Amino acid sequence: MEQSLEQVIQSVFDHVIEYRRDFHKYPEVGWTEFRTASKIARRLSELGYAVELGKSVIRKESRMGLPSELELEAHYERALEQGADTAFLDDLKGGYTGVVGTLKFGEGPVVALRFDIDALKVNECKEDNHFPAKAGFLSINEGVMHSCGHDTHAAIGLGVAEAIVKLGDKHFSAGTLKLVFQPAEEGVRGAKSMVDAGVLDDVDYVISGHMMAMKSGVLVCGAGGFMATTKLDVTYKGLSAHAGAGPQEGKNSMLAACSAVLNLNAIPRHAEGASRVNVGLLQAGSDRNVIAEDSFMKLEIRGETNAINQYVEAYALRIIKSAAQMHDVRFEIQQMGAAPSGKPTQELVSRIQRVSEKLGVFDDIQEWSDDATGSEDFMYMMNHVQDQGGQGAYFIVGSDKVTGHHTSNFDIQEADVIKAVHLYVGLVDDLLA
Amino acid sequence: MEQSLEQVIQSVFDHVIEYRRDFHKYPEVGWTEFRTASKIARRLSELGYAVELGKSVIRKESRMGLPSELELEAHYERALEQGADTAFLDDLKGGYTGVVGTLKFGEGPVVALRFDIDALKVNECKEDNHFPAKAGFLSINEGVMHSCGHDTHAAIGLGVAEAIVKLGDKHFSAGTLKLVFQPAEEGVRGAKSMVDAGVLDDVDYVISGHMMAMKSGVLVCGAGGFMATTKLDVTYKGLSAHAGAGPQEGKNSMLAACSAVLNLNAIPRHAEGASRVNVGLLQAGSDRNVIAEDSFMKLEIRGETNAINQYVEAYALRIIKSAAQMHDVRFEIQQMGAAPSGKPTQELVSRIQRVSEKLGVFDDIQEWSDDATGSEDFMYMMNHVQDQGGQGAYFIVGSDKVTGHHTSNFDIQEADVIKAVHLYVGLVDDLLA
Amino acid sequence: MEQSLEQVIQSVFDHVIEYRRDFHKYPEVGWTEFRTASKIARRLSELGYAVELGKSVIRKESRMGLPSELELEAHYERALEQGADTAFLDDLKGGYTGVVGTLKFGEGPVVALRFDIDALKVNECKEDNHFPAKAGFLSINEGVMHSCGHDTHAAIGLGVAEAIVKLGDKHFSAGTLKLVFQPAEEGVRGAKSMVDAGVLDDVDYVISGHMMAMKSGVLVCGAGGFMATTKLDVTYKGLSAHAGAGPQEGKNSMLAACSAVLNLNAIPRHAEGASRVNVGLLQAGSDRNVIAEDSFMKLEIRGETNAINQYVEAYALRIIKSAAQMHDVRFEIQQMGAAPSGKPTQELVSRIQRVSEKLGVFDDIQEWSDDATGSEDFMYMMNHVQDQGGQGAYFIVGSDKVTGHHTSNFDIQEADVIKAVHLYVGLVDDLLA
Amino acid sequence: MEQSLEQVIQSVFDHVIEYRRDFHKYPEVGWTEFRTASKIARRLSELGYAVELGKSVIRKESRMGLPSELELEAHYERALEQGADTAFLDDLKGGYTGVVGTLKFGEGPVVALRFDIDALKVNECKEDNHFPAKAGFLSINEGVMHSCGHDTHAAIGLGVAEAIVKLGDKHFSAGTLKLVFQPAEEGVRGAKSMVDAGVLDDVDYVISGHMMAMKSGVLVCGAGGFMATTKLDVTYKGLSAHAGAGPQEGKNSMLAACSAVLNLNAIPRHAEGASRVNVGLLQAGSDRNVIAEDSFMKLEIRGETNAINQYVEAYALRIIKSAAQMHDVRFEIQQMGAAPSGKPTQELVSRIQRVSEKLGVFDDIQEWSDDATGSEDFMYMMNHVQDQGGQGAYFIVGSDKVTGHHTSNFDIQEADVIKAVHLYVGLVDDLLA
Repeated sequence: MEQSLEQVIQSVFDHVIEYRRDFHKYPEVGWTEFRTASKIARRLSELGYAVELGKSVIRKESRMGLPSELELEAHYERALEQGADTAFLDDLKGGYTGVVGTLKFGEGPVVALRFDIDALKVNECKEDNHFPAKAGFLSINEGVMHSCGHDTHAAIGLGVAEAIVKLGDKHFSAGTLKLVFQPAEEGVRGAKSMVDAGVLDDVDYVISGHMMAMKSGVLVCGAGGFMATTKLDVTYKGLSAHAGAGPQEGKNSMLAACSAVLNLNAIPRHAEGASRVNVGLLQAGSDRNVIAEDSFMKLEIRGETNAINQYVEAYALRIIKSAAQMHDVRFEIQQMGAAPSGKPTQELVSRIQRVSEKLGVFDDIQEWSDDATGSEDFMYMMNHVQDQGGQGAYFIVGSDKVTGHHTSNFDIQEADVIKAVHLYVGLVDDLLA
Repeated sequence: MEQSLEQVIQSVFDHVIEYRRDFHKYPEVGWTEFRTASKIARRLSELGYAVELGKSVIRKESRMGLPSELELEAHYERALEQGADTAFLDDLKGGYTGVVGTLKFGEGPVVALRFDIDALKVNECKEDNHFPAKAGFLSINEGVMHSCGHDTHAAIGLGVAEAIVKLGDKHFSAGTLKLVFQPAEEGVRGAKSMVDAGVLDDVDYVISGHMMAMKSGVLVCGAGGFMATTKLDVTYKGLSAHAGAGPQEGKNSMLAACSAVLNLNAIPRHAEGASRVNVGLLQAGSDRNVIAEDSFMKLEIRGETNAINQYVEAYALRIIKSAAQMHDVRFEIQQMGAAPSGKPTQELVSRIQRVSEKLGVFDDIQEWSDDATGSEDFMYMMNHVQDQGGQGAYFIVGSDKVTGHHTSNFDIQEADVIKAVHLYVGLVDDLLA
Repeated sequence: MEQSLEQVIQSVFDHVIEYRRDFHKYPEVGWTEFRTASKIARRLSELGYAVELGKSVIRKESRMGLPSELELEAHYERALEQGADTAFLDDLKGGYTGVVGTLKFGEGPVVALRFDIDALKVNECKEDNHFPAKAGFLSINEGVMHSCGHDTHAAIGLGVAEAIVKLGDKHFSAGTLKLVFQPAEEGVRGAKSMVDAGVLDDVDYVISGHMMAMKSGVLVCGAGGFMATTKLDVTYKGLSAHAGAGPQEGKNSMLAACSAVLNLNAIPRHAEGASRVNVGLLQAGSDRNVIAEDSFMKLEIRGETNAINQYVEAYALRIIKSAAQMHDVRFEIQQMGAAPSGKPTQELVSRIQRVSEKLGVFDDIQEWSDDATGSEDFMYMMNHVQDQGGQGAYFIVGSDKVTGHHTSNFDIQEADVIKAVHLYVGLVDDLLA
Repeated sequence: MEQSLEQVIQSVFDHVIEYRRDFHKYPEVGWTEFRTASKIARRLSELGYAVELGKSVIRKESRMGLPSELELEAHYERALEQGADTAFLDDLKGGYTGVVGTLKFGEGPVVALRFDIDALKVNECKEDNHFPAKAGFLSINEGVMHSCGHDTHAAIGLGVAEAIVKLGDKHFSAGTLKLVFQPAEEGVRGAKSMVDAGVLDDVDYVISGHMMAMKSGVLVCGAGGFMATTKLDVTYKGLSAHAGAGPQEGKNSMLAACSAVLNLNAIPRHAEGASRVNVGLLQAGSDRNVIAEDSFMKLEIRGETNAINQYVEAYALRIIKSAAQMHDVRFEIQQMGAAPSGKPTQELVSRIQRVSEKLGVFDDIQEWSDDATGSEDFMYMMNHVQDQGGQGAYFIVGSDKVTGHHTSNFDIQEADVIKAVHLYVGLVDDLLA
């Protein structure tokens, strides 16, 4: 006898919490989610999904902000030690930590759900009133923590995977479901490589969401306002010299960097919308009496629209280059991350609102919010599907706030996590049943 | 019967004063010395010198800091009205205001004496205690004044010319005398064009001097310490835009200029000697609510040696160019003047000391001074003659100080002017007799 | 027999055109509208309005961007020569060129209409296809022109004054009408001084409008989006010195100015809305080889809200001051203009829409536009009336575009000018009849 | 029977080498020379010198560039473990690591010899061809090395102490000898605290020297040309904020630092002599998307004369402070080191020349060199003694060069070390015998 949707959701609850706590305990930062991705692949495989991973879903050249070879190897070793599934590990090696599970029911629309899976470089709080401490699933990877809730996102994905299978072929007779597990969302580094690998090419609907520390029971059906952004690392290489005996023999990379910083901040505002530019880190020179040979900057650019972001980026690149030439130093610019702006499809947002109202699990359903001030690389996926005539949306599921995202005692209520599973399954039901 | 050197000097005194007052009354700034040069050419011609002038002694492309066509024409017209000698005026037209008079006695060394003839853009003081006012030879060219004493230099040159002729062929039987009257010394713009025209190519000894407001009776035989220098005008051309409605549509030349100014001042010191860089004038933008389209800078560079000056100049050119590229504006750099550093030949300085001690017209003869902090384009001539194996020197003749050079009530005592004539003639006597 | 509103409007047409052409022929820039204001006072007086002008409607200390004493006197003399009404001239002397005409019908609301009357420093085009040339009323004041249409605003004010009187006491039996003629709107310099003088203290409704070169027949009932702004002049006073002989003896005002310019442009963006900062003019230094003693900057600041404008202004003042201290130069900051942002009262905007729809003189009535990117000092008046519980609005009357505002061949179609008279009278009718 | 001076020098050779190697093996950086100073105090004491150390020879407030409390304690503990002499350790605690040994022979002049004793933060080369590796006395303190030869200076001081005692009271019957062992010469941090403690107040002659990697056999009797210098650490403290969501809420310390860096480099040259300014290290901000809260700079200033150094320092302090105010951040300036310029007394230099010529241990005796481009805090001592009417001198003893000073395989030939002992003893003999 067929179970109701509510019963099915109820039945996967324990697994979702189990996975969530496991991912939380073994957090892995972007492009090193070897253990996490292998576990996901294993589970999808067990559930009967066709699983693709590694280079077939991640385009090598489109990856941004990759750690060094050394770090990749070290984290791979750690994953091995921490119980990664060796059947899948080989494909992930070298930083190809994306996984896609596909379930085909028949002819019909292709629905993709996207879950981001990476952690952050944050030291987790170990005090007793921090729930993961109390419940015994604190991060054991020093200096790494799921302090943005992507542990819940990964677990939600697996919960949805299980629930859909339980609902089964009788329930769904048309269309295809794609569950997209994306690495390296932090720093907006990973989505582009999955888009460029073609993962979204056949998709008609793409949906993603985020657990947000605010208030339990809230659902924002359409979250807009994400700024386009570009993240850059800049290295200046000059020539050292004794500051007393031969300043003229040096090539002063600090003068280049400081000229760049001032002029980057002085890039003219754009009258058509908000823009940002920030050099967040500058390290220049070595010692007091030496002309600064090396300088290094981390910066980011944002624009309310892609055009504004491109305007600022083009200007910034010119400044970075010219500041180097000005002081006769060499320079290297590396793109460490990027995301476009985007706007959820109104029709799909309305559908999310309608579906969520029927589900009855949210107390406070809001149609739309443009309050986002950050950036989200899911916009690459959403734009891509919209460009080929499909629809996309991004929603937010609230959870009572302990502290803000990216802090050491960040937490999401587990009761809210299951609501997100419910919503995703409800949406798939609406789109494919 | 042959006159003694002292008698000859005495006999030219009145002419020297007459010419000095005439040049003072009709001052002409660099490259517009049409009347002055024509008078000099006439006088040299009358005295029997072979006269060359215009393009044969001034290389067109080597002239720096030329006034506009309009100014050249206006000053030419004025020269005509003020009694320029029309026999020579045609050759001078267009800013070729150099004159060289040559007298050949026989085989032997070639001695060149150089006299600079241009005035400055200074309003002359009209008060009674200013000697030119009292004696009735104030400048009648508004805003132009001989406030650096080049009126005396030109007159000294004609005095020397006359005295040498009076001493005559019996006195001099070997060698050649070249009297070089140079335009546009102010701003170090003229000497290079005479060197490049070949005027100094056959010269064995080149000597020049300067009347200096300090103390009458002083002679500095070898004046060194002139810094090498380069004078540049820079124009930045951007694009205007409404600062409120579309700042991003502009190209802000003021940002380029201000970045250039800060970085130019920040060019690293050179450990091997003094350097200077100064942007003395910056005009940027047009109105409060408009992105600055045009900016203009006047700057100068100095170095204790040519190498140091070149180091700063090369660095400055890179900054000027890179600042333009940084803000996507066009730029134009114009060299408005230049002079190398230089060091008088010790042997010739000793000779000047010896000769001057015999003359008995100076009270306080100093062998050497490195106190100069300005620049002097005679260094082009001196370097050139030294490079081809000859000797060069630059001396200073003191005169009781009324005020500093380049001020509106600057004056040189006429009694000291004749001492300079005496010294030059004594030197020619020593070198050629 | 009482005339209909349409008949009355028709009857004042010729006078409106006559005054418009007269004001156009004798344009006067801000604070020098001696002739213009005296003519307005004379006319209001003839029509029976109680007239206040000069210091009673302009607070001395609140005036911004006043011309020099010399200019004020010269323009006063010119006004005398050009037929200013001497009965009123004394009160206007010294730059107190505002006029207020009041007509009281009885108890009831006070309605103020504001008309700005100043011209711009623009050379008027003299070509035949420029209508004022063809019709013989070109500016005779060289370098001054009504190229923003304030000539029409002043004429509209007098047309309204006449029409209201013609409609008479029978038509209006309650309330008070205030016609406010404001000087120095260009550069947002004049409105504050009238608000601070108390002119708006008893006002319940304040309305103003602008003739706009766009398309005849268009009416925008509520124009919002004006940015708050502050206009500043900055003078830096250092100490000159010879750039070669003693750079350390100078105090380099150009270094202060260039540091200020770069840092002003680098003031961080405000996340809550648009901001601007522009240094539009910088003049620094005197000559190539002199350390720059004097520097002068004209700059402006804008903010989407008053709070944003204040944030940028406070930051800018700190930069300007600190840049001076950095290079040990003195500084002086003068506020040359200012205007707040503002939002028309929705109720009054709806009323304007309703009234204008009844009038039948506009083809294309738009309720609202936020497209403004400039600033308008009427916002001082509107904010003031709103703050005391009243209503305010600003509308735009279109006219077929010849060229943009502030250009030398700017023109407004006279047929559209009368439509504005019609609208103002209709509004007074609606508010007071 | 009395030994000859040569015999005495010969007899102390082994001890000198022994001490040199011991100090080299246990190097200690400035203000942490606990072991070194205690060993010196012990030895002086054994030889019969009156020993003063700690706070009686080091003025607390005059110490510059002190390590943190934590570092002082850690190095103290290490000294204890490495055999420091506990009899003296207490007095040295907290960074008072200077020692003075005094020997009084009778009435007469007071002669002070100064030896600096600190090491550098350099990792010593461990390759076999590096002499300390071969001879088995490599530094055992990781990251610390005597790579400027102060190990030899300290050993020379003890060698002189022993030799003088051996020569004995019969040889010396008048005057007083003071052996001054100074901490923290690197970074010019220590000499001032000994001068301010009064160590030099009764001194008539003060002499110091340096072993220099150049050529064995060379002696420069008078080394001048040391520039005055000031070393500063600057901390800027702003406020972090999210660069996307609220840049206006931050206080950007990086903008302050970069403005400071550009303007510091742009401090005008001084016409009377060389100057330098270098920011050698800048660390600003923390992460890409955060407004930089903290910034830190290490800088140094130099001047050919004290006046020039003071001019640059005063200008620099103004810039550092104003840049903070400009961006509303707090600042802290710490003086980490300082030294004046100075000129050895000609008479004493001639004496050194005369004495050294008699000794016959140097092949190439040069009277004078102004080639120094660094700084030396012995100038505090020399100036102080000269100011009170005494004489001072600084000499250089050459040694065949392996590599430059401050490098990881720096070495001084031990045969040259003994020559320095010889010279010092010869000078004391000349001054006191």
